[in-house]
Amino acid sequence: MAEESFKEYGKEEAISLLYEGSGFVRAENPSFEPSPGSEVISSCRLFVEGIDFDLIYFPLKHLGYKCVCAAAGEIYASMAHPRTLMLRLGVSSKLDFSHIRELWSGAVAAAREHGFKTVDLDLVPSPNGLTISVSAGGERLKLTKGRTVKARSKDLVCVSGSLGAAYLGQQVLEREKRNFDKMEDDKVQPDLEKYKMLIGSYLKPEIPAAAVSRLEDSGIYPSHGYLVSHGLSDTLKRLVRDSGLGVKVYADKIPFEGNSFAFGKEMDIDPISAAMNGGDDFRLLFTIPILSAEKFRRDFQTFEIIGHLAQPEVGAVLVTPDGVELPVKAQGWNNE
Amino acid sequence: MAEESFKEYGKEEAISLLYEGSGFVRAENPSFEPSPGSEVISSCRLFVEGIDFDLIYFPLKHLGYKCVCAAAGEIYASMAHPRTLMLRLGVSSKLDFSHIRELWSGAVAAAREHGFKTVDLDLVPSPNGLTISVSAGGERLKLTKGRTVKARSKDLVCVSGSLGAAYLGQQVLEREKRNFDKMEDDKVQPDLEKYKMLIGSYLKPEIPAAAVSRLEDSGIYPSHGYLVSHGLSDTLKRLVRDSGLGVKVYADKIPFEGNSFAFGKEMDIDPISAAMNGGDDFRLLFTIPILSAEKFRRDFQTFEIIGHLAQPEVGAVLVTPDGVELPVKAQGWNNE
Repeated sequence: MAEESFKEYGKEEAISLLYEGSGFVRAENPSFEPSPGSEVISSCRLFVEGIDFDLIYFPLKHLGYKCVCAAAGEIYASMAHPRTLMLRLGVSSKLDFSHIRELWSGAVAAAREHGFKTVDLDLVPSPNGLTISVSAGGERLKLTKGRTVKARSKDLVCVSGSLGAAYLGQQVLEREKRNFDKMEDDKVQPDLEKYKMLIGSYLKPEIPAAAVSRLEDSGIYPSHGYLVSHGLSDTLKRLVRDSGLGVKVYADKIPFEGNSFAFGKEMDIDPISAAMNGGDDFRLLFTIPILSAEKFRRDFQTFEIIGHLAQPEVGAVLVTPDGVELPVKAQGWNNE
Repeated sequence: MAEESFKEYGKEEAISLLYEGSGFVRAENPSFEPSPGSEVISSCRLFVEGIDFDLIYFPLKHLGYKCVCAAAGEIYASMAHPRTLMLRLGVSSKLDFSHIRELWSGAVAAAREHGFKTVDLDLVPSPNGLTISVSAGGERLKLTKGRTVKARSKDLVCVSGSLGAAYLGQQVLEREKRNFDKMEDDKVQPDLEKYKMLIGSYLKPEIPAAAVSRLEDSGIYPSHGYLVSHGLSDTLKRLVRDSGLGVKVYADKIPFEGNSFAFGKEMDIDPISAAMNGGDDFRLLFTIPILSAEKFRRDFQTFEIIGHLAQPEVGAVLVTPDGVELPVKAQGWNNE
């Protein structure tokens, strides 16, 4: 990576250089005019070095991409369309301008993919590690608001892709980092090919950009929506809280990446536990009226139905293949 | 301060406790429905410990208050009304729950004062110091959009209060911190009474919450608006960039707190330089059509007219009392 000093540029100059060729025009305090009757939805995520990412193995371009996906995912979870994006980087002195360029290029790619109209970037100095704040504004159309009905106790719980893989992928990278630290002279490039899918799930999660439009086109309006990004348990707890209902999820319905179980065995990590308590899967989870089930199965084949809402007294439970109902536990402060 | 351990609570429990009695209901990904034809305005600010504040002398309650004022101020600068607020705290292990309570109480006070309808709080762990991300969503009314005209070269530059005081106040606190470090046994409480106004400007800036409504009522629509929070020079540079015009500001029109010059002499800091390059004043700066001047002077007596727009070739200049025009310099990366 070229050593292009960050301090060479004034902040304004640095930001102008980043916008060049990005396809976005700089806009401070960005604005948009929603269509009549729309609701405005906002989301914000804060990513902290050493907690949410480790720059030893997290490429900056992927990091920029992933942070924007998180904010976009929250907008989609609210059945809204992305409009404005604000990116604030707390830049540590370890990083030079070329690093910021990398991060920004990933952010811009995600912003384009998710249809943001405006991206507002600001840089501030940070004494301790990189900090990334990503805020998004979106628009939930009038029709969606009108058609969304209250959750009922048999609504289906659907998820946009495999779970647990991101956590397993992160564990692969953590293991390689430890191995690398231990090695001294004869460094061997580790063979990560077989874990490619898992690592990809962690480093470059994908959010289905068209999901909201396709749901609108299908006339299917979820009663609740979430971005699964701190484990399925966390999401189910929030669903119970927000719906006032219970939820049952079936372990054998949870979708997994191909080699999750093989790798889980190797690392002594239960993939189901990774799905429930691991983080960073970046999947959309919707609850769908049971009357839409057939249409949903036909039109949304990449989504999996993993369970259903239930009476409030059920709480949040995971049903094992032999029918045992395990209560879903809340996460502690540091377990996210 | 009570030692109430933060780790005792799960994150969800901690957040629920904070909302109790706050007057706000928790809302993740907050929404609002703008009135027809309104524009949605967003703002976001990231505050980093060790750069934007020093917890040695910055009370957490004031810090929470100030961060929310920054986001609200950006909304007002866009002639919009605050609606939704998102607060993300990267909480270091040095802080316990009672500290977060303090910070939150200040944030809630500012959110109420500035008319936010919804406040969305999230807590994430931070390995290195406290980080605060504040994002706001607001609404610029249809009428405002329709009545705002392009800036012209004689528009007046108006500012909502004194400048430079926050920087001077911060210097008082920095000096006391150094003195305190030097003292050993016989610690004497420093007499800060005479610097109360300056310190207050830094620790508890005030943004006129009614300014936008009052401008609407007066039918005065600024061509440009800014929150002055990184020195007047920075704001004037942005004004030149955004308007495509020049700007002249008169040193003897800049409003100062009472004892700015006395204290500036004592500390060997030129108050004019503090106003131009110091930060954190949190004043609104608007450019007003010259035809509104008389009405503006009458209706907005707390605002001061400090200069006017000019032909583009003028650039940004500060006019000294003896008529010398000094070009306003851009700020470097670390001088903000």
